[in-house]
Amino acid sequence: MRSPQRLVVDPSQIQEQVVTLTPAQAHYLHHVLRLKPTDPLWILDGHGHRWQAQLGGDRTTVQLLDAHCGHSELATEIILCLALLKTATFEQVLQQATELGVRQIIPIRTARSLLQPSANKYQRWRRILQEAAEQSERLYVPTITDPLTVPAMVEVAPQGYIGSLRATTLFADYLAGMNFNAPIAVAIGPEGGWTTPELDLVLSAGWQEFSLGRRTLRAVTAAIATLSLLSHYSEQHHPTM
Amino acid sequence: MRSPQRLVVDPSQIQEQVVTLTPAQAHYLHHVLRLKPTDPLWILDGHGHRWQAQLGGDRTTVQLLDAHCGHSELATEIILCLALLKTATFEQVLQQATELGVRQIIPIRTARSLLQPSANKYQRWRRILQEAAEQSERLYVPTITDPLTVPAMVEVAPQGYIGSLRATTLFADYLAGMNFNAPIAVAIGPEGGWTTPELDLVLSAGWQEFSLGRRTLRAVTAAIATLSLLSHYSEQHHPTM
Repeated sequence: MRSPQRLVVDPSQIQEQVVTLTPAQAHYLHHVLRLKPTDPLWILDGHGHRWQAQLGGDRTTVQLLDAHCGHSELATEIILCLALLKTATFEQVLQQATELGVRQIIPIRTARSLLQPSANKYQRWRRILQEAAEQSERLYVPTITDPLTVPAMVEVAPQGYIGSLRATTLFADYLAGMNFNAPIAVAIGPEGGWTTPELDLVLSAGWQEFSLGRRTLRAVTAAIATLSLLSHYSEQHHPTM
Repeated sequence: MRSPQRLVVDPSQIQEQVVTLTPAQAHYLHHVLRLKPTDPLWILDGHGHRWQAQLGGDRTTVQLLDAHCGHSELATEIILCLALLKTATFEQVLQQATELGVRQIIPIRTARSLLQPSANKYQRWRRILQEAAEQSERLYVPTITDPLTVPAMVEVAPQGYIGSLRATTLFADYLAGMNFNAPIAVAIGPEGGWTTPELDLVLSAGWQEFSLGRRTLRAVTAAIATLSLLSHYSEQHHPTM
């Protein structure tokens, strides 16, 4: 059976169990999806809440029915610090990281990736995150911050795990010792890897470096592999929300 | 430091430590890469062997020097049975599965994916596999078979693990019980999942079904997540070649 159609709205659009749609949202529900008032619909606020809902008669509102207790979120807040890769691969990670349950993405400016994303890019990236969250039935839409430098990254996240080509400890060897009750930050570098000064800085700040094995992975595959391991371990050992 | 340039040749091109290049390979080494005779070069035969090598003076041969003992292959032979997804996502999986160490890919024709790939597609797919193997320093280039139906899949691989939206056992819960000394087959269905008759057939043949957690993953993400878990576990618990 197909899941109901899903729409993420801003919390400010909800008042007394009624959602006031934007013109674009109204167009989407009525003309793109061609929903009828009896069709099942979920409204999400992107901040952990989901409701069963139905179209209002006036074409500009949606009536919220029962609130739904979520079960699709990881118990653990995963933060992905991701070097600014080429746009296509960066966007591939955004989409797949959302499916795998990440809560926040911090783009990192590194010696080997100095891109400066435009405001348009950010708009596009937020749309990718939102669509991936809807598609994978997330209750939260992952947030994406402004790009940080490597020194700023370790100020924001004083502990974490950084993928490194020179590391010998496998990521899996850290899992049992991680504190899943606090946010967990993982960092994935650009193609070509972090520079030695970058790695030294991050490790001396208290992070630990990990390997994903003996084959050379592209950055996109390294990011998805790391998140797969983390998210699956969290599902296995820690109760979901 | 950058790794040496890598070239995969057919074993039949190698005789008495000399590789006879095809015109395309000679063009690639001399005119695309502009290699000099002193530049480091690796020759791989795609079947588990790698040599240090150097360009011959005559522009049509390469001289093999020392054979290299590989360390980039998993000890485990992983077979990915993958529903014929849309071309772009199917090719994304081919590339990432190669990075993650898969040895064989079996495209599966399912009720929800009836594509019939052309001979041109196969040529293109083999090139993707070869390039990904070179890039990730694999000793083996994964093979890709003709498409199989679901009943044919369980004849070829009488045991395996199939991703299923209705399963409740996590993939990780099977890992400790898997036999890593024999090939391990995993099957990933199309968008929308396997049909109930397909799943019933596969399970009654002796396969086991697994879940990747509570979020709905697209097929491409499900495939990469599964291979990440399998490949990383193999690295962690079983000595590599």
